[in-house]
Amino acid sequence: MDIAALEEIKRLKYRYLRCVDLKRWDEVADTLTADATAEYGTAVNGGPVLRTGREAIVDFLRDTLTPDIITAHSAQQPEIHLDGDTATGTWCFTDTVIATEYDHTMIQGAAFYEDRYARDDDGTWRIRHTGFTRTYEYMVTLGNLPGFRLTADRWAGH
Amino acid sequence: MDIAALEEIKRLKYRYLRCVDLKRWDEVADTLTADATAEYGTAVNGGPVLRTGREAIVDFLRDTLTPDIITAHSAQQPEIHLDGDTATGTWCFTDTVIATEYDHTMIQGAAFYEDRYARDDDGTWRIRHTGFTRTYEYMVTLGNLPGFRLTADRWAGH
Amino acid sequence: MDIAALEEIKRLKYRYLRCVDLKRWDEVADTLTADATAEYGTAVNGGPVLRTGREAIVDFLRDTLTPDIITAHSAQQPEIHLDGDTATGTWCFTDTVIATEYDHTMIQGAAFYEDRYARDDDGTWRIRHTGFTRTYEYMVTLGNLPGFRLTADRWAGH
Repeated sequence: MDIAALEEIKRLKYRYLRCVDLKRWDEVADTLTADATAEYGTAVNGGPVLRTGREAIVDFLRDTLTPDIITAHSAQQPEIHLDGDTATGTWCFTDTVIATEYDHTMIQGAAFYEDRYARDDDGTWRIRHTGFTRTYEYMVTLGNLPGFRLTADRWAGH
Repeated sequence: MDIAALEEIKRLKYRYLRCVDLKRWDEVADTLTADATAEYGTAVNGGPVLRTGREAIVDFLRDTLTPDIITAHSAQQPEIHLDGDTATGTWCFTDTVIATEYDHTMIQGAAFYEDRYARDDDGTWRIRHTGFTRTYEYMVTLGNLPGFRLTADRWAGH
Repeated sequence: MDIAALEEIKRLKYRYLRCVDLKRWDEVADTLTADATAEYGTAVNGGPVLRTGREAIVDFLRDTLTPDIITAHSAQQPEIHLDGDTATGTWCFTDTVIATEYDHTMIQGAAFYEDRYARDDDGTWRIRHTGFTRTYEYMVTLGNLPGFRLTADRWAGH
């Protein structure tokens, strides 16, 4: 069992998700292979979205996740299978999205990711494909709940 | 420190929880020793439930987690202690259960798992005992919240 | 890659968070260096709180997290960088706090931890600094939501 490669791939996934939530788009780009594919999205926005290529993926994220959209993505329970310089990974995933300009509409859900990874020419593991199947997802208007207050927002004023 | 054994036991737990959420009962059975014991349940359904034996556990899960019950279980923060071919594991646990036929009643909670594992005759680690103590658990009727919509349900139509 | 040290540091963080949620203050103290610093808190209570020294940190936690305050802290997605006998760690963090005596006011949020660790004189890794920046945090009065029931509380009657 190549434990070091497993640790590198886990850290790759964590860096990708952290940089998405922190809206650090150049760092997100560096976690993807040039030919990466991604299948994102929610029925709320008209269903799954397929993007092909590092630039198209990052453009989609940058355009969608503007400062009025707070996201918190969490991937857990990695089941990673190595095959030389490629690997597959299954992850349990939960996410919270809050649209501050829409009465604090909140979307919460869970899914299972099915990813593919590749060790790139520079020796670095990158994401070649990422996509998930939802277990559930719901939306609710937080702003209309009793006692609601948004007490922290990293993107307020941006 | 036998890192490979730790990784195998973590993956065992992840596979168990993933297959419960995906209602893959035969795969769940394969994560348990024949003599496994489980202590499940919630005060909502009349308190903890003790099941003894792989078949009894899987029967209980199959009977309880019908397609109108969406579950998302997540175990994190593994503290695993190896002792030869047995091991103990403590996990932080969060779960969301949505009963779609009861106005989308949602149960959410957190707990700490105290598990026991054994390396079985075929060399595979399996769960010998699983059980948790709740930190908290609450229920709420999602269907009556402002702006509620269930926007994804893997089991719809099943 | 010193996988054993990474595993020890992860387990240190998990033990710290578990013992906070279980209100085991002596065990929390043992996860901190004597000169540890912590930056905690929420705007709800008047903004971030800085504490210096193991005793001051534990006193703050013991005084704040009384039995009427249920907490469930979860740190995931470790990105740990070792540098000899010190290390830094970034974690994705989610927490739920329920104040049972205030109509079950619930605070939920996400953050990124930026920690520092040190291998102490006794060879044990401990937390030298812990602190986080919130991505978001909100509060809501659970007790006024339709169908609300608290179905488990580990601290009821304490």
